[in-house]
Amino acid sequence: MGCLKGACIIGQSGGPTSVINASALGVIETALKSDVITKVYGAAHGIRGVLDDKLYDMAQEDPDELKLLMNTPSSALGSCRYKLKDPDQDDTDYKRILEIFRKYDIRYFFYNGGNDSMDTCNKISKYMIKNGYECRVMGVPKTIDNDLFGTDHCPGYGSAAKFIATTSMEIYHDARVYDIGTVTVLEIMGRHAGWLAGASAVASYFGEGPDLIYLPEVPFDMDRFLADVKRIYDETGKCIIAVSEGISNRDGKLIAEVFAEGDVARDSFGHAQLGGVASSLANLIKHQLKCKTRAIEFSLMQRCAAHCASQTDLDEAYLAGKAAVENAASGITDKMVAFERETVNGKYRCNVKLIDLTIVANTEKKVPLEWINEAGNGVKKEFIDYVLPLIQGEASPPRVNGVPRFAKLKKVLAK
Amino acid sequence: MGCLKGACIIGQSGGPTSVINASALGVIETALKSDVITKVYGAAHGIRGVLDDKLYDMAQEDPDELKLLMNTPSSALGSCRYKLKDPDQDDTDYKRILEIFRKYDIRYFFYNGGNDSMDTCNKISKYMIKNGYECRVMGVPKTIDNDLFGTDHCPGYGSAAKFIATTSMEIYHDARVYDIGTVTVLEIMGRHAGWLAGASAVASYFGEGPDLIYLPEVPFDMDRFLADVKRIYDETGKCIIAVSEGISNRDGKLIAEVFAEGDVARDSFGHAQLGGVASSLANLIKHQLKCKTRAIEFSLMQRCAAHCASQTDLDEAYLAGKAAVENAASGITDKMVAFERETVNGKYRCNVKLIDLTIVANTEKKVPLEWINEAGNGVKKEFIDYVLPLIQGEASPPRVNGVPRFAKLKKVLAK
Repeated sequence: MGCLKGACIIGQSGGPTSVINASALGVIETALKSDVITKVYGAAHGIRGVLDDKLYDMAQEDPDELKLLMNTPSSALGSCRYKLKDPDQDDTDYKRILEIFRKYDIRYFFYNGGNDSMDTCNKISKYMIKNGYECRVMGVPKTIDNDLFGTDHCPGYGSAAKFIATTSMEIYHDARVYDIGTVTVLEIMGRHAGWLAGASAVASYFGEGPDLIYLPEVPFDMDRFLADVKRIYDETGKCIIAVSEGISNRDGKLIAEVFAEGDVARDSFGHAQLGGVASSLANLIKHQLKCKTRAIEFSLMQRCAAHCASQTDLDEAYLAGKAAVENAASGITDKMVAFERETVNGKYRCNVKLIDLTIVANTEKKVPLEWINEAGNGVKKEFIDYVLPLIQGEASPPRVNGVPRFAKLKKVLAK
Repeated sequence: MGCLKGACIIGQSGGPTSVINASALGVIETALKSDVITKVYGAAHGIRGVLDDKLYDMAQEDPDELKLLMNTPSSALGSCRYKLKDPDQDDTDYKRILEIFRKYDIRYFFYNGGNDSMDTCNKISKYMIKNGYECRVMGVPKTIDNDLFGTDHCPGYGSAAKFIATTSMEIYHDARVYDIGTVTVLEIMGRHAGWLAGASAVASYFGEGPDLIYLPEVPFDMDRFLADVKRIYDETGKCIIAVSEGISNRDGKLIAEVFAEGDVARDSFGHAQLGGVASSLANLIKHQLKCKTRAIEFSLMQRCAAHCASQTDLDEAYLAGKAAVENAASGITDKMVAFERETVNGKYRCNVKLIDLTIVANTEKKVPLEWINEAGNGVKKEFIDYVLPLIQGEASPPRVNGVPRFAKLKKVLAK
């Protein structure tokens, strides 16, 4: 557990967020100042950059330009969705990674990502231990989906939640300007967990959000859904619905797939074409309720709207990166940085803790069923209390000419 | 042209924007302080509220709550899409409007909207003149489409343009995190004019935006389009395309309709279903180029994202409302408030001018063809120079609990 001198790698992996670069900045700035870390490399496109021997020398970057990473969305170093094989079955990739680690004297490996990335991180950590190569491996959590196990919440979630809550409120107002009936269906990311769709309930909590919210945690029943919509529409002439993209029926089949069955939709070019689940639901409602409908997908915006990021989330994302380096430098390895929520005099506080990579890898954390209402079409106050502290504070990204000024890295390849 | 004492009505009409309530606030605050305006009424859902005798007494509102209108998107008083008939054919509505004007002693009528609304405004103005009822009628411009004739630009456009430029930049970064090929198609509002889609070029101008931009002003040629996309995709492995919803072919047929012809797309419930033009184009590219594609609709967000509004636009929207009242109070009638751009020592300045309602009603202003490049797939520097001043300055809407605090009006009905 003593002093280990050597170089480090920071890699970004999986879907990007508004704040993943803030975590990278936390790693890079802390590592550049470290007494034990001799060189700081950024991996191009995560673990792929290691396999391809494509590492950027982060010391070559202008420190002021680097600082702009704090408010730059997406993965500045590039990301990947590369799944490492089981080393007992095929250790080709691992041998290559070890070769590159030896070549650059990599003694610190920081990997920033979600479930799959923590699996990668865990496998590399275990392989290095097994092969007696001393390297401290630390996972830095990231995912808008908020489904990482063992942490109160994930960097990236708070900003996505803030965008979703804010945009839901704005759409609420827009959707009721005319005195004619309309039903609006919002499609929000989240294949297995409803943390993101649930965030729209913050808007509802303040009286300006969706009437109905459906999460993948509860089986979606089309008849009950249509009855819910009809009831609200008949009462108020409006209905706003938020659905997770991953809502599924009682058999576990995605509702999006249920729609895609039967006649295959084709355009005039003969190509099969189907919209997302919101567009299919809106279409169904239009025909059943004979009313005006509109489907809105929050699409990539919910994960890249850095202009609407939560400052709390940004600060915590940076902290996660910084804590990974500090802990590794002090001798810790094979862990992921995680958050623990503490309430001090009624105020939210976020503490760092460390959890074993083995525990976190590949385990999904879903919305507790007791936070979802009995009808399965909304969330309870517990969910609101959980989300609110995470969306506090407004990011103020630097702007030039009225548009954001994002980091432009030189990306000088290491020799 | 002397002193005319009496009540006023402010009405909002057509599609809402992020800043139409700022114009309403400009009218209301100025009218409430006026020596000649005795009462300030807000019409519920525009001219429909006049016809239905549904007028709100704006003096009953808390002034601090009213001030929140500055940053509240959508039409706080409610909007409508009601087209008045030609009074020579059917003057029923006009007689009713005059009856209401007499009932409340309405001597000032302010109508806030786009092309159709200025037509309404113009017809009312001419009817009152013809029938010898003294009432000063002023149009207050509003439209994200920016297609109102006779004004350099329209309140609402700058904020939509800022959202589009900002979001295009964020998506640019998000769309290139993986080292795999992708084509992204952005669908932007604008049925006849390409002002909004063109605003995405601001992102491109700073090197972080769409590669190709198609406006309704230029006939859309599918073969040239596919060749353009293929060329860029082959060169760079990525391609981002922005299209106006209103792009049409050489025969003037909407591309969205071209796709909808032929086989009718049906989902498993037997309902015809087709996406927007971006989704159809993305689907076509996927099949032709055999690559990953994604369609993103900016949908309602582009007109209601008050959290990303341009402060310049907000200030000018307020100014338009204020100028309408001041000019009417001083004796002017039958005009729309318009803007004239002046450049003083290289700095943008926006001056108010007045134009005849007859001239502005029902005339559309399109993007000058000389601002569009020869290939018809982008805009020139003149367009950028035009847009940039309009998107300057960031709105800072009041927030409570991390989400916007929008105006909640009491809407007390006038007796």
